[in-house]
Amino acid sequence: MENLPFDTARLAACAAEIVANTRELSALGWTPATSSNFSMRLDDRHAAITVSGRDKGRLVAEDIMVVDFRGQPVATPHRPSAETLLHTQLYARYPEIGCVLHTHSHVQTVASRLYAPQGHVHLEGYELLKAFHGNHTHEMAIDVPVLANTQDMPELAEWVETLLDQQPMWGYLIDGHGLYAWGRTMAEARRHLEAFEFLFACELDLRRLNA
Amino acid sequence: MENLPFDTARLAACAAEIVANTRELSALGWTPATSSNFSMRLDDRHAAITVSGRDKGRLVAEDIMVVDFRGQPVATPHRPSAETLLHTQLYARYPEIGCVLHTHSHVQTVASRLYAPQGHVHLEGYELLKAFHGNHTHEMAIDVPVLANTQDMPELAEWVETLLDQQPMWGYLIDGHGLYAWGRTMAEARRHLEAFEFLFACELDLRRLNA
Amino acid sequence: MENLPFDTARLAACAAEIVANTRELSALGWTPATSSNFSMRLDDRHAAITVSGRDKGRLVAEDIMVVDFRGQPVATPHRPSAETLLHTQLYARYPEIGCVLHTHSHVQTVASRLYAPQGHVHLEGYELLKAFHGNHTHEMAIDVPVLANTQDMPELAEWVETLLDQQPMWGYLIDGHGLYAWGRTMAEARRHLEAFEFLFACELDLRRLNA
Amino acid sequence: MENLPFDTARLAACAAEIVANTRELSALGWTPATSSNFSMRLDDRHAAITVSGRDKGRLVAEDIMVVDFRGQPVATPHRPSAETLLHTQLYARYPEIGCVLHTHSHVQTVASRLYAPQGHVHLEGYELLKAFHGNHTHEMAIDVPVLANTQDMPELAEWVETLLDQQPMWGYLIDGHGLYAWGRTMAEARRHLEAFEFLFACELDLRRLNA
Repeated sequence: MENLPFDTARLAACAAEIVANTRELSALGWTPATSSNFSMRLDDRHAAITVSGRDKGRLVAEDIMVVDFRGQPVATPHRPSAETLLHTQLYARYPEIGCVLHTHSHVQTVASRLYAPQGHVHLEGYELLKAFHGNHTHEMAIDVPVLANTQDMPELAEWVETLLDQQPMWGYLIDGHGLYAWGRTMAEARRHLEAFEFLFACELDLRRLNA
Repeated sequence: MENLPFDTARLAACAAEIVANTRELSALGWTPATSSNFSMRLDDRHAAITVSGRDKGRLVAEDIMVVDFRGQPVATPHRPSAETLLHTQLYARYPEIGCVLHTHSHVQTVASRLYAPQGHVHLEGYELLKAFHGNHTHEMAIDVPVLANTQDMPELAEWVETLLDQQPMWGYLIDGHGLYAWGRTMAEARRHLEAFEFLFACELDLRRLNA
Repeated sequence: MENLPFDTARLAACAAEIVANTRELSALGWTPATSSNFSMRLDDRHAAITVSGRDKGRLVAEDIMVVDFRGQPVATPHRPSAETLLHTQLYARYPEIGCVLHTHSHVQTVASRLYAPQGHVHLEGYELLKAFHGNHTHEMAIDVPVLANTQDMPELAEWVETLLDQQPMWGYLIDGHGLYAWGRTMAEARRHLEAFEFLFACELDLRRLNA
Repeated sequence: MENLPFDTARLAACAAEIVANTRELSALGWTPATSSNFSMRLDDRHAAITVSGRDKGRLVAEDIMVVDFRGQPVATPHRPSAETLLHTQLYARYPEIGCVLHTHSHVQTVASRLYAPQGHVHLEGYELLKAFHGNHTHEMAIDVPVLANTQDMPELAEWVETLLDQQPMWGYLIDGHGLYAWGRTMAEARRHLEAFEFLFACELDLRRLNA
């Protein structure tokens, strides 16, 4: 364990924070059937991320591994999630981003399928829009992109880059798949994630109510 | 900490009660993304209220501050919620009110958006109408006001004053924002809050069922 | 506390069982805003029942009182629930009944309002119909009565007697109010209560789905 | 307890695993009113299974009994669930299957009634289809069979055999009754069960949303 290219104390701290937060999100039912993955920035070249396929409700520190920003495992025999690149592209592009959360809730999945044809979910008129960093009023609107699903991660990552070139954003949906949300810290990423989940749930319900 | 214009033992007791109740409400999912705020009367000039922007599921006593009835911080560097005035106007107007709870549940938010055009939610035919202090039968009806949302708090407070001039009431909705409910004690405010949430949820569901 | 007309050890055992079960039902959200009441038979003349207006999520043994089968308090200054007669009429009529549970869930309240015009909820085609004591197949149907709501308890009790004269049954709804369910033991009453809640929820959802 | 035809240490380990997992499933509300049953393979002739009629939220090791693959009790006076044959037919047919879970959730019951006329639930376009063992992409579809309900277990078991002759599958629904799901281990059976529940819930909701 010598000469590792990252700070092991920093890794231990991040692993503990990821485990605690992942278990809370799992208890909400947002990580069904071992889906979802979670990461934090270690430094300007590495991130800590959940190992593929683990039960998120029983996660332990050993289920967290290190990857570089191309998504490759570092000093570990574990295999990272297929979607690791979608985490690391954000760390590589934005030095201020410290945490990326990918969940797979019922609401996120249904919203992604329902709004995939129009390519985004329009959110307007909610006080909770103020929960997104940089917003100071509810008198604004955001369009959350819904990307097509594909098993070709480099392609998907490229679509995300194109979106990021066009607008500032704190999250996007993938059709039939779930949500990516991020922030400067775990607390901010959690707040953004909760806000997206809440707002999508309101939009779906207003549609059920034919409002 | 000398010569404070309020009773610190009373503040400590209120802070403990606010923290315990806020955590329970947060566990129900009624305070998403650091939203919502909660207060109790300290005396005839001061109230204890949650500091702005704190995670309500992890609230501690240090997250409670003191304000006067104009909504200004007292003996603290903390910033109160932007909506503090909506709490303190109630304490200033009604000496018997001891607790104000502002939550932001899914049901409250959806109901506020759905009924904003007609300006109120009509509740009738429910046994639980007896849960509101002063009601002794289900054979009555109430109209819960739905106010437009605005970031101009003095204006919003003025609309509330006008409503209070017209009718006795234990709560109101703000469009896209959530519920204010109050009572003489924390227990009564909680009971009113639970009754509003339950009755709004029933109304929404009957509408989904086209009843 | 001498010469009480009931067995105090039996009361203590029933109170403990009522408290434990009521807290579980409260945690499910079936007792909003201090609503609902719960009882067990003590002997052939007395029942233990929850005191009116208590928070069911914080119930303690002191919140349980004794009533006779006319619904009158025995050896206690406490006031029983207004609906006590709906419990005691069952103990008086059926020596085998040991427990009566009255809850006020969202599903029960919405179902009661939706089906009040036709006077019953028809349940058919569910395996869970076997959960009701005496049923050994799903190839049957039951009509759960929905009574009008009234604050006149003797009148409501008389309606129930008329229903009981007509058919065997393990529960009924009151419009806008909730469910009464019962059984020979607490465990059986809980099983019947859970089965009614589950089956009403399925019926409502099939209607939402236009099935 | 001598000369038992199975390994008692293996039984104790399986009973502990069944109890822990059943309590978790019960806490999700998937085992209402003492319904549902759960089993694990002991060896090539025996399985451990829940005794009929027990409250799944309070299950203990003594509520687990042994049956042979014809569904008959072995070295126990307990009565197994009427549906035991639906468990043991899978162990008898597939040596690699180690666990069978039968639950009775709201979503499973409603889906079974809604899709019974067409005989299956079609699942397509979901990332979570990858949760089923053997699937490596979301670009596929599965039809989950919905069987008619009957109290004639040998007949029901025969229908299942016919289905298993036609296609590989990890679960099926019974009309008005619930889901059978299985896997090589308890963890895999749980993952399959969670995936079915999640995907059925999405399908129902998309239908509510008229999507």
